[in-house]
Amino acid sequence: MKPSIILSHPQMGENIGAAARVMANFGLVDLRIVAPRDGWPNEKAVEMAANASALVENAKIFKTLEEAAADLNFLYALTARNREMDKKVIAPREITLLEKTGFVFGPERTGLSNEEISLCDEIISIPVDSNFKSVNLAQSVAIIAYEISTIDHVTEQPRNQATKEELIALFTHLENELDERGFFQEATKKTGMVANIRAFLTRAQLSGQELRTLRGIIRYLAQKSP
Amino acid sequence: MKPSIILSHPQMGENIGAAARVMANFGLVDLRIVAPRDGWPNEKAVEMAANASALVENAKIFKTLEEAAADLNFLYALTARNREMDKKVIAPREITLLEKTGFVFGPERTGLSNEEISLCDEIISIPVDSNFKSVNLAQSVAIIAYEISTIDHVTEQPRNQATKEELIALFTHLENELDERGFFQEATKKTGMVANIRAFLTRAQLSGQELRTLRGIIRYLAQKSP
Repeated sequence: MKPSIILSHPQMGENIGAAARVMANFGLVDLRIVAPRDGWPNEKAVEMAANASALVENAKIFKTLEEAAADLNFLYALTARNREMDKKVIAPREITLLEKTGFVFGPERTGLSNEEISLCDEIISIPVDSNFKSVNLAQSVAIIAYEISTIDHVTEQPRNQATKEELIALFTHLENELDERGFFQEATKKTGMVANIRAFLTRAQLSGQELRTLRGIIRYLAQKSP
Repeated sequence: MKPSIILSHPQMGENIGAAARVMANFGLVDLRIVAPRDGWPNEKAVEMAANASALVENAKIFKTLEEAAADLNFLYALTARNREMDKKVIAPREITLLEKTGFVFGPERTGLSNEEISLCDEIISIPVDSNFKSVNLAQSVAIIAYEISTIDHVTEQPRNQATKEELIALFTHLENELDERGFFQEATKKTGMVANIRAFLTRAQLSGQELRTLRGIIRYLAQKSP
């Protein structure tokens, strides 16, 4: 199973096209794009992709990262802001491919949001010169696609991890039940609390079975609550 | 000693700038450019380099690869045409940094000429999908700069290899002596014969001392010839 490249809120069509071209160089085909700034289709993306224009034309477009990652089991976030988040941080060379994996790249100017990173399982930090930290989006894709191509062997489904869709359904279920009971007392604090809960539930890397058990627990508790 | 990146006959300023930017990301500073198609300075190169514009502005411009590499001891050619040349071919992960090393990238459309490759010591072939072989120039630089950054230790001058300037002086000396004696009988065959001679003299990876010995031999033979 070849991994997916997910560009979240990319700004420049040129970068989308260059990313697609280098994906094709290294045998990757599944390009997913979340809310491209300049709409879709994008002529500049097709141009920059050169021979790999079919990859741009076949890209799947989504409104949110949650939708883009729904069928995947494991997400890597590409970000330099690795100290702020309580996630495992690895170098590109340490990538392992387990189950259905996506690599998530943020927009050129700002990179991934904390909310997007929180949906990911691990962070990949490309080691760069501290004076020149800003790596071009398509160059980041190049380095990751190149590293993926050097991995000989894809391990077969050893973890049976839940999909992102199942995980998000768990989030929604739990947050709705909590909301109904007034758990998030102050609206201003809700965002942060939700992020914290999602963070540890993501970090748990639940299997599909564990996730279903957890949903049963929530359902049971919710029924028995006043 | 940080290695040099040499762009030979680059066509698009955008690619020069993007190459400079990713060099800066990975701590490389020595950018050399041979005969850029659109002249120099190039405003698009400066723009695309973003924060690394100083690297573009400080790039050294040369008329030929021979001049650009004169002070270097070891050259890697980046080319996919690796079967045609009788040179050692390595993957990017096998790069070693010995003495003053340059990485030579050809123009976007055609890549390096056979003559340029013949001046290089070894070939680096980036392993790509056979259906999408054409890697963007700046993306190739990204992958090489990234690989260089992962090399922990730079070996200290173990080979004491001759500089390219010394090697080219040897070529010129030998070819002039041969030419005067009518060695290259047919003008049409001279180019190929010169290329062959240069190829094996390059492959010999002569030390400075060996090169001086060889020049003494040529001088001696030439004096004693009729």
